[in-house]
Amino acid sequence: MPTKPGQLRSDIAWSAPDSITIKGYDLVTDILGKLSLGDMAFLELTDRLPTPRESAVFNAIAVTLVEHGLTPSAIAARMTYAGAPEAMQAAVAAGLCGLGSVFVGSMETAARMLQEALPDPKADVDVERLAGKVVADLHSRKRIIPGIGHHFHKPVDPRAPRLFEIASGHGYAGPYVKLMQAIARHAEETYAKTLPVNATGAIAAIASELALPWKIIRGIGVMARAIGLVGHIREEMRDPMAREIKMRVEAEATAHLRGARREQHG
Amino acid sequence: MPTKPGQLRSDIAWSAPDSITIKGYDLVTDILGKLSLGDMAFLELTDRLPTPRESAVFNAIAVTLVEHGLTPSAIAARMTYAGAPEAMQAAVAAGLCGLGSVFVGSMETAARMLQEALPDPKADVDVERLAGKVVADLHSRKRIIPGIGHHFHKPVDPRAPRLFEIASGHGYAGPYVKLMQAIARHAEETYAKTLPVNATGAIAAIASELALPWKIIRGIGVMARAIGLVGHIREEMRDPMAREIKMRVEAEATAHLRGARREQHG
Amino acid sequence: MPTKPGQLRSDIAWSAPDSITIKGYDLVTDILGKLSLGDMAFLELTDRLPTPRESAVFNAIAVTLVEHGLTPSAIAARMTYAGAPEAMQAAVAAGLCGLGSVFVGSMETAARMLQEALPDPKADVDVERLAGKVVADLHSRKRIIPGIGHHFHKPVDPRAPRLFEIASGHGYAGPYVKLMQAIARHAEETYAKTLPVNATGAIAAIASELALPWKIIRGIGVMARAIGLVGHIREEMRDPMAREIKMRVEAEATAHLRGARREQHG
Amino acid sequence: MPTKPGQLRSDIAWSAPDSITIKGYDLVTDILGKLSLGDMAFLELTDRLPTPRESAVFNAIAVTLVEHGLTPSAIAARMTYAGAPEAMQAAVAAGLCGLGSVFVGSMETAARMLQEALPDPKADVDVERLAGKVVADLHSRKRIIPGIGHHFHKPVDPRAPRLFEIASGHGYAGPYVKLMQAIARHAEETYAKTLPVNATGAIAAIASELALPWKIIRGIGVMARAIGLVGHIREEMRDPMAREIKMRVEAEATAHLRGARREQHG
Repeated sequence: MPTKPGQLRSDIAWSAPDSITIKGYDLVTDILGKLSLGDMAFLELTDRLPTPRESAVFNAIAVTLVEHGLTPSAIAARMTYAGAPEAMQAAVAAGLCGLGSVFVGSMETAARMLQEALPDPKADVDVERLAGKVVADLHSRKRIIPGIGHHFHKPVDPRAPRLFEIASGHGYAGPYVKLMQAIARHAEETYAKTLPVNATGAIAAIASELALPWKIIRGIGVMARAIGLVGHIREEMRDPMAREIKMRVEAEATAHLRGARREQHG
Repeated sequence: MPTKPGQLRSDIAWSAPDSITIKGYDLVTDILGKLSLGDMAFLELTDRLPTPRESAVFNAIAVTLVEHGLTPSAIAARMTYAGAPEAMQAAVAAGLCGLGSVFVGSMETAARMLQEALPDPKADVDVERLAGKVVADLHSRKRIIPGIGHHFHKPVDPRAPRLFEIASGHGYAGPYVKLMQAIARHAEETYAKTLPVNATGAIAAIASELALPWKIIRGIGVMARAIGLVGHIREEMRDPMAREIKMRVEAEATAHLRGARREQHG
Repeated sequence: MPTKPGQLRSDIAWSAPDSITIKGYDLVTDILGKLSLGDMAFLELTDRLPTPRESAVFNAIAVTLVEHGLTPSAIAARMTYAGAPEAMQAAVAAGLCGLGSVFVGSMETAARMLQEALPDPKADVDVERLAGKVVADLHSRKRIIPGIGHHFHKPVDPRAPRLFEIASGHGYAGPYVKLMQAIARHAEETYAKTLPVNATGAIAAIASELALPWKIIRGIGVMARAIGLVGHIREEMRDPMAREIKMRVEAEATAHLRGARREQHG
Repeated sequence: MPTKPGQLRSDIAWSAPDSITIKGYDLVTDILGKLSLGDMAFLELTDRLPTPRESAVFNAIAVTLVEHGLTPSAIAARMTYAGAPEAMQAAVAAGLCGLGSVFVGSMETAARMLQEALPDPKADVDVERLAGKVVADLHSRKRIIPGIGHHFHKPVDPRAPRLFEIASGHGYAGPYVKLMQAIARHAEETYAKTLPVNATGAIAAIASELALPWKIIRGIGVMARAIGLVGHIREEMRDPMAREIKMRVEAEATAHLRGARREQHG
């Protein structure tokens, strides 16, 4: 049933006094006790329940994104909690605000590269040639090739081969995975550097295999990291570091101003 | 090993070039492909892996909190996306900012009530008497009893009995569940109204059975809702409602000002 | 004094027990009672105090951005306040999150267009020719020309001529103002439409006259709108609309789902 | 004209194609070029234009709150900018999220204390006796007395006497200022410590003199700090510190985990 112009319409959920329906499933009888949190996330992203194979692969990529340690995002969340401990949700929100182009965005860029190069995964294409074309094009426009190499996890980001292994084991070693891997090989040749697929590239490829559009890929990172940020707030509650960081940063960053005044008055 | 005063310390995660360790588990060998997203959330909240029984129960309460339809929080996220579609993370963050005392907070208040009334779940207590005391105390201080009754899901919030059934089926029908249910019964007597345990109360009780401290309970809501908010952003991408809502709200809310001007100039 | 690599350094502010120094000015003796809030904002954006002429012009553009009525951003803030009234700061934050590419971003884009076209405002350039080139270039790349036309304030956005008048009255009718106006004229010819400079374009031009780099221009909108959002929270405290909006949106947007169920059960 | 139940109504602003009206004032003819940013903020908070005396005093308290250096809030904003430089508004939002009970909240608490003790500033009360009662009451309930003492600005927070001087010079040394000062004197006696009024207490008292309700006082801090946070983002753009902070925090906080592994493998 098409929506009339200007009509508000949502197909996500509705409630009756005695029931709650989410994407056509009854929360009480169809979902609770049957769906895990990861499968519920899959339902939010696709409007359908995952098959067991999809569930295994989707949960693996989502789990990869939960915890990255003391990221700028985690530090922002802890700093925020220090000022507003009564509003934990705002601390998580502050942490999420930084999941932009620099960190989580690269996953989106990689997925976009793959999906724009190969709009139809069932098309009969020469993946090697396509990869060569993608790399040549990005190289000629002096753009970074997303999803390959890692400044710290060298020579190989250990998450990538494991994610590909999980995907492959469940039948998801399809064209996007092959394309991503071929892009890395072509990039290594072009740049004469070791540039294997990293976690970002593996997730972008596998999410594309799961038919998730690139525009929503960042959302997997956002939901996963919200989980990790709650973990950081929990640690900050028990063993806080925000004030100590603040004191050190302030003391060091303004030392030259204090010094200048002493000289002036000395 | 205790931390020296002023030393920064986090026990959550660390990375080597060839490995990532989260709470003592190797991400690649111990976690990926083995832990679901919900179990990863449990690890973040408890520093250990859930047993299968814990996993089933924890996933059920987390899943309950993912999707509540067009809440103020979901509308805030959609409004934010309309202005900054390039920053989906900020839209989810905006949605999370509203998970405060009014909605998610009641879960925290209920868990606090239970855990403060019964600090040691192994203590030998008369749950009926304790419930009576809790209700009498809150009633005398004219405070709302959290976790019971529902303005819309009447007479019974269908999520509560289902959650209790799942918990019970996995051996979690312990003292906090009994206390919550007894509190509802005493409240019904005191207020002479039908006030069964609602989803909030059931989750508070079951999370207490899982030994989750009340201070972190809101975090389950925050992480779960982040998942649901990504779902709302996804729908807003395809079938937007933010601008229409804005136009209608503005037109209606300022109609009296327009009218006043016409009269003045008429 | 150059910063050593990796050294933290901030030149903004430092405190002694008996004084606070901000950008070299003593807060107590130099700033309080002498600087208005707008001039303090100018100090934050430029590291120096405004001249009276700069103050007049800067305050005018900042004031223009404070209040735009029931924008998506204001509605997001109100929705957030409804859920977390104990955390007003998070409601304002939620409102700010939406000041992205769609609304406040156009000001940034216009300022960038002007400053990239004319990097040195003292250069001896033919403004008409430059404007023609800018319009032709954007037109050929099928890009929107920022800062001109308005979907509602037709034929002329009344803020633009008033802002130009204020700027001109204080000696700021320089090359960026001329360029912006010439761009509008060329665009009107190219598109054969009435496309006068709008508020966004006027602010971009005047901010460029004040030598504010385009990268920080969005910040004027962010700080100004924070003020306006506090005004909306204040009204929401006294005369709330969030819950009513939520109820209406939910009822209308999910009506088709309710209907579907009735048919199914009917 | 009263609002009908359920009707949406806002008295803030409305637009016609050729005009914008804010709180009854025409933006173009009454506001632009006539109101400074601080006076516009006063209009948002009170629905009327300030008198020159009100303007001077209000601008002084707002300016006091703009810049507090490298606060947790400023660090959170910088961390967020490092991850999402394309969304400066989200970085400011992240910074605002931490303006809760710990920092900005104390101003609210102090204003509430004053306004609840003295609901009618024109009432004929014995301020000394009232102050004694307020202190005795908070002392007996083991509550902190807000607005007095300072952990760093000792023995006197230099902002407080200056703010009182400005207020007094404009005729705002009324009952709330007297009450705040008397509370400090009584607290000093009760606790046998030097506890002069601090900036927070002075602002709370002066804002109360301006008839600003305590519920909105936090908003002055929120709007002022938004201005300061834009200043921090501007510095972070040119001379970033976020990554360096992140690297140091991570290295130190996880050193014991790295060490543990070395021992284990050694």
